[in-house]
Amino acid sequence: MQNPNLPLTAVIMAGGKGERFWPKSRVRCPKQFLSLTGDGETMLQKTFKRISRLVPPEQVYVVTNGEYMDLVKSQLPEVPESNLLREPAARNTAPCIALAAAVIAKRCGDALMLVLPADHLVRHEPICADVLERAAAAAAEKDAMVTIGITPTYPETGYGYIAFSDADSGGTGVYEVDCFKEKPDLETARQYVESGNYLWNSGMFAWKASTYLKAIREHLPAVADITDRLQEACDTPGFEKTLLEQFPQMPSISVDFGVLEHEKTLYTIPGSFGWDDVGSWPSLRRVARTDTNGNYRDGDVVTFGTKNCVFSGGKRLIAAIGLDHIIVVDTDDALLVCDVDAAQNVKKITEMLREQGRGELL
Amino acid sequence: MQNPNLPLTAVIMAGGKGERFWPKSRVRCPKQFLSLTGDGETMLQKTFKRISRLVPPEQVYVVTNGEYMDLVKSQLPEVPESNLLREPAARNTAPCIALAAAVIAKRCGDALMLVLPADHLVRHEPICADVLERAAAAAAEKDAMVTIGITPTYPETGYGYIAFSDADSGGTGVYEVDCFKEKPDLETARQYVESGNYLWNSGMFAWKASTYLKAIREHLPAVADITDRLQEACDTPGFEKTLLEQFPQMPSISVDFGVLEHEKTLYTIPGSFGWDDVGSWPSLRRVARTDTNGNYRDGDVVTFGTKNCVFSGGKRLIAAIGLDHIIVVDTDDALLVCDVDAAQNVKKITEMLREQGRGELL
Repeated sequence: MQNPNLPLTAVIMAGGKGERFWPKSRVRCPKQFLSLTGDGETMLQKTFKRISRLVPPEQVYVVTNGEYMDLVKSQLPEVPESNLLREPAARNTAPCIALAAAVIAKRCGDALMLVLPADHLVRHEPICADVLERAAAAAAEKDAMVTIGITPTYPETGYGYIAFSDADSGGTGVYEVDCFKEKPDLETARQYVESGNYLWNSGMFAWKASTYLKAIREHLPAVADITDRLQEACDTPGFEKTLLEQFPQMPSISVDFGVLEHEKTLYTIPGSFGWDDVGSWPSLRRVARTDTNGNYRDGDVVTFGTKNCVFSGGKRLIAAIGLDHIIVVDTDDALLVCDVDAAQNVKKITEMLREQGRGELL
Repeated sequence: MQNPNLPLTAVIMAGGKGERFWPKSRVRCPKQFLSLTGDGETMLQKTFKRISRLVPPEQVYVVTNGEYMDLVKSQLPEVPESNLLREPAARNTAPCIALAAAVIAKRCGDALMLVLPADHLVRHEPICADVLERAAAAAAEKDAMVTIGITPTYPETGYGYIAFSDADSGGTGVYEVDCFKEKPDLETARQYVESGNYLWNSGMFAWKASTYLKAIREHLPAVADITDRLQEACDTPGFEKTLLEQFPQMPSISVDFGVLEHEKTLYTIPGSFGWDDVGSWPSLRRVARTDTNGNYRDGDVVTFGTKNCVFSGGKRLIAAIGLDHIIVVDTDDALLVCDVDAAQNVKKITEMLREQGRGELL
């Protein structure tokens, strides 16, 4: 069934506004545009580099908020401007991917799409590329949606899980998905990990544009109608106008909830390549190098009797004494000091600042 | 015995180089020149204001390191320049006071001296002034050295103690000192406080210049010889040269260890006026106003779930989440984050910086 001529494209979703990396991430420059691991490469650039192992730059699409278009252009000069797709409004992932599918279908007739969030980290890039390549092949061969699952290494409660069928894959490593599970509590997460039948939902997918368009026609007809109009207008002088008028009319819905959970047959490929969604400051201790005391250090940091901390520095010296499980993030106009176990409350601070009318700090 | 015409002078000792308030205090601008309590008044200015209740500016003397002379001039424009006495080298308190006594004796013949450190805080200034006034009167009447003791309110291990005689003072509130005690361990400090016979050694004293000069002649003859030469040269064209040559030859010794502990008869007046030597960052929680969660806040600070902390801000917002017993000090070029119980290790950081040749941060 595989069409050997089907081109391979990548769609990087870069429209997120995540506040969990405040004060480094700001409304005007969210997480995906930051270099959080201190190596000078932003999350978006890492994602592009990752996918470049498989897809040439002219087949890479980036979907993002209009506000971030200049950031994307300056961080990914290799990607043709016509491949930078603008979401006139935030409508979650199902419409985001629909926009990309419409453009790709118009330009290529049909194509394989590797869909990736712009703000995750991967430690073992070659293994990841291999899994993505196999996912694309499976999506083509089975004419089905394929999601990349991650073999869980601990009972994380911050991820969604995929229950997969334990039927023999016949050596292909491609399994049918039983169902998706929302973020579990710790006890449930432990059971998931112990059972061996659950994977982390990575938010990375492979499918043909035509498969996705067919799926939204079935599960999200309102999205499909607008997507048809976008495809029709794509690469005509009226596209910008149509996009501005039509896109905001789509419902805000995730691809998981709006499409995948309704698909009767879909597949997962379990991967294990040091993936992490880097959801908040404490996760840097998981994904990046730490010192012998378990401290993640980015910047000019001097410590004494300090362990299990996260330091993300700015221009100044950070001196830490006697700290355990503390996050310190230094920027020009705001400083965050936070207990590791309270990192989910960063948004309480940004809410307070918003209420106080201090938008310049957000 | 009291000479009603004896003028009252004050000697403020402002030569300290304390590193315990790093990074706000720096070698070039130590604690006494900082406004640590966030009210814009420096410790030195507060000390001057305190003593101004009793002593006119032209009778106030400040002894300090040559490096700090400009700081003193700018912070205390009221004090005549000829009363700013320069220590050519750091020689601890006995020589510091000897220099002041020499100048005062030369100019006034004799005078009462109220001797005060420049870097302590007092909450109840009128009560403090009253105790100092009574101490001066007792020093004149008894022709003896009088030290201000502080009725201890808790078993502080960071202060020296004064054991005083429980003989009835005859309503004068002036007691004989039995002996001085070094900083005790916690158990000993508890016994001291419970006994009722111990006071904190505040480092504030009252005596006549002639009494002090007599005492050093007896207990520190090497200091006394040089002091005589300084007194001789004072207010002559050769004073600067004599000071530069002679002062550094004095031994480095404290007035407690070199003089007071050897005096057969000396007195103490117990006072209770919210005195604190503000020895380190955690002490700000004792001496200054805290919020309902026990946080000391100076600067632009937003907190969530945070208690018992010390925030000393700079130009930027400090956001604190889930912290307990943490010190955060923000300056333009260095940031300190420190557990309250580890504050004594601030010097470990300054030592490291010195070893690393980063003197610009000290």
